[in-house]
Amino acid sequence: MKKSILIITCLLATLAMNAQGNKNLAELLGYPRDSKLLIIHADDMGLSHSVNTACIKAFENKGITSGSIMVPCPWAPEIAAWAKENPGMDIGIHLTLTAEWNLYKWGGISSSDQILSLLDRNNYFYPSVEELGKTAKGAEAEKELRAQIDKAIASGVKPTHLDTHMGSVLANPELVKVYLDLSAAYHLPILFPRAYLGMLPADIAKSLGSQVFLLDNLFMLDEKMVTPNWIDAYRKGIESMKPGLNQMIVHLAIDNDETKAITIGHDGYGSAWRQKDLDLVSGKEFRDLLKANKIILIGWKQVRDAMNNTASK
Amino acid sequence: MKKSILIITCLLATLAMNAQGNKNLAELLGYPRDSKLLIIHADDMGLSHSVNTACIKAFENKGITSGSIMVPCPWAPEIAAWAKENPGMDIGIHLTLTAEWNLYKWGGISSSDQILSLLDRNNYFYPSVEELGKTAKGAEAEKELRAQIDKAIASGVKPTHLDTHMGSVLANPELVKVYLDLSAAYHLPILFPRAYLGMLPADIAKSLGSQVFLLDNLFMLDEKMVTPNWIDAYRKGIESMKPGLNQMIVHLAIDNDETKAITIGHDGYGSAWRQKDLDLVSGKEFRDLLKANKIILIGWKQVRDAMNNTASK
Repeated sequence: MKKSILIITCLLATLAMNAQGNKNLAELLGYPRDSKLLIIHADDMGLSHSVNTACIKAFENKGITSGSIMVPCPWAPEIAAWAKENPGMDIGIHLTLTAEWNLYKWGGISSSDQILSLLDRNNYFYPSVEELGKTAKGAEAEKELRAQIDKAIASGVKPTHLDTHMGSVLANPELVKVYLDLSAAYHLPILFPRAYLGMLPADIAKSLGSQVFLLDNLFMLDEKMVTPNWIDAYRKGIESMKPGLNQMIVHLAIDNDETKAITIGHDGYGSAWRQKDLDLVSGKEFRDLLKANKIILIGWKQVRDAMNNTASK
Repeated sequence: MKKSILIITCLLATLAMNAQGNKNLAELLGYPRDSKLLIIHADDMGLSHSVNTACIKAFENKGITSGSIMVPCPWAPEIAAWAKENPGMDIGIHLTLTAEWNLYKWGGISSSDQILSLLDRNNYFYPSVEELGKTAKGAEAEKELRAQIDKAIASGVKPTHLDTHMGSVLANPELVKVYLDLSAAYHLPILFPRAYLGMLPADIAKSLGSQVFLLDNLFMLDEKMVTPNWIDAYRKGIESMKPGLNQMIVHLAIDNDETKAITIGHDGYGSAWRQKDLDLVSGKEFRDLLKANKIILIGWKQVRDAMNNTASK
C-alpha cells in the first residue's frame, strides 16, 4: 500500500474495544491491555523471483511476521508453492488492481472481457490508483478480486488477511465496498486503519469501527521520510509507536538485475530501497530497537482468529 | 522450437526453386546459387529479463541475426520497447501456446473465456505440445495468435517472420492450418522446414513447397547432442551444413538467479545451457568456424522481402 500519509496516529485507539466485553485486541491475544502490538509485513510477494527470495529469507529469519501475495503477477505460483509448504507463515492476499512498473506488466486473472473497466487498452491494469478509480466498476472488481483469492486458496494458500496493492481497493467508493464485502464473505480481516473510517458512510464506519482487526497505526516508509542512515526513519516510527494494533509495511527484494529492470525509472520502492529494507529487517539493530521499545510482534493469523472467535460468540 | 529430431537434412534442397524463373533464395538475395545461407536465431525473447539482456547483447555483438518474441510473457514489453528503438534488428513473433516451466507461468492475451481450448484449469497454457494438441481448436488458436501478432505490431515491432514456441502450432492439423493462414494474412514467412511438408495435405504441400522461405535445414541442440566441449556439437552442425537456407536456433540467457528459478527442474535449455549458448555465439571460435565453412549469415528480413517481392511479381 502506498499512500501519501503514512504514519497514522489515531486518537481513537483507546476506543479499540471489541463487542465481547471490554477486552481490546491485546487482551484477546493474552497480552496486557496497553501492549504495542506490531505486524511487520512484506508487500508484493509474487511480483518477482527476487521479491520472493527476499521475503522467504525474511520469514525464515523472523524479520517479518506477515506477507501478502499479488496473485496476478508472474511469480505468484512460486511463492504460493512455498506458502503451501510453510503453513505456519502468515500469508495474506495483496488484492491487486494496478500494475505500476514501466516495462513489466500484468492484468487480471479473470477473462479480460468481463473486467474491462479495470484494464487499459493493452489489457494490463492501469499504472495508477487515480486512473483505476475513474473507471473501475465495483461488480467487475469484485469478480476479479474473488478470482484472486479463490486462486490462491486453490493453490494451497490459507490466507490470513486481505490487503491492497497501492491502496487500489480504496480507489473509489464502489471498490471500498467490495473490500469490506470480501472481508465478510471470506471471514478474513482486512488492512484498514482506523483513520480511514471517515471515508465510509456513518453506519458502516460505526459497524466496522467495533471490529478488533482495525489498525490503530500504519507505518510505511515513503520517499520524503528517507534518512541517510536507513534505520533512522524506522527508529522514529518505532519509538513513537502507541499501544494498539500497529502495522509496519516493508518492501523486500534482492538488489539485482531483475529488480533493477522491474523498477527502472522509479526511485521510490526501487531495487536499492528494497535491499535496504531486507537488510533492515534482517539486522540485529532493528530487532534490538523493537525489544527496547517493548514491541510485541504478532501476525495476521492471530488477528484473524480473534476476529472470527469474537464474531462467533 | 523443441522437436526431438533436430538436424534435418533435406533431400529436397536442390528443388528449392522459387516461382520466379529458376532463381533460388541465395540468387534472389544476390549470392551464388550454392551458398550456405544461415540465420542464427534466438528463441524466447520476452520470457525473462535475463533472456532479454542476453539477446540484446548477442544482437549488438552480431552473435545472432534474428530473434523472436513470446508476446504473452511478462518481459515482452521490455524487449518490444527495445525492438521499436532498434528497427534494424530482425525480430519475429514466437507464436506461443504453451507454458512449460514449473513455477513461472502465463496464459493467452485474449479473453480467457474465448480461448478455453488452449488453457488449463488455472487459465495458463498447457506445459506440453501433446496436451495442447489434444484440446486446441483452430479458431481459438487463430484468435489468440492474431492477438499476439497484433499486440507486437501495436507496440512498435515490425515482425520479420513467425515461428513457434516448442513447435506448438504444429500440435494438431487445425493449428498447422492456422500457422499457414497467418503467414499469408500477415505476408510473413514462417519457420517451416521442408522436411515437414509430409505432414501437410498433398496440394498444400505442393503449393507451400514452391515458397522461397522454406528452411532446407534446421539445427537446434538437444540434450542428446550435448558434448563436453559446448562448441563441438555446433561444429558438427556447421561443418555438415548444406547449401540452401539453414537456421540455427540458440537459447540465450544470463545464468543467474532469475534464470535458475524459471528453469528449475529442467536440465535441457536450463540456466547453464543458455549461458553456454550466449558465450558460444559471442565467441571468436564460433565466428571463425562460420567463416571457415563459408557460411553466409542472413536474417529473416531478407527472406521476408524476397518472399513478398516474388509474390508481387
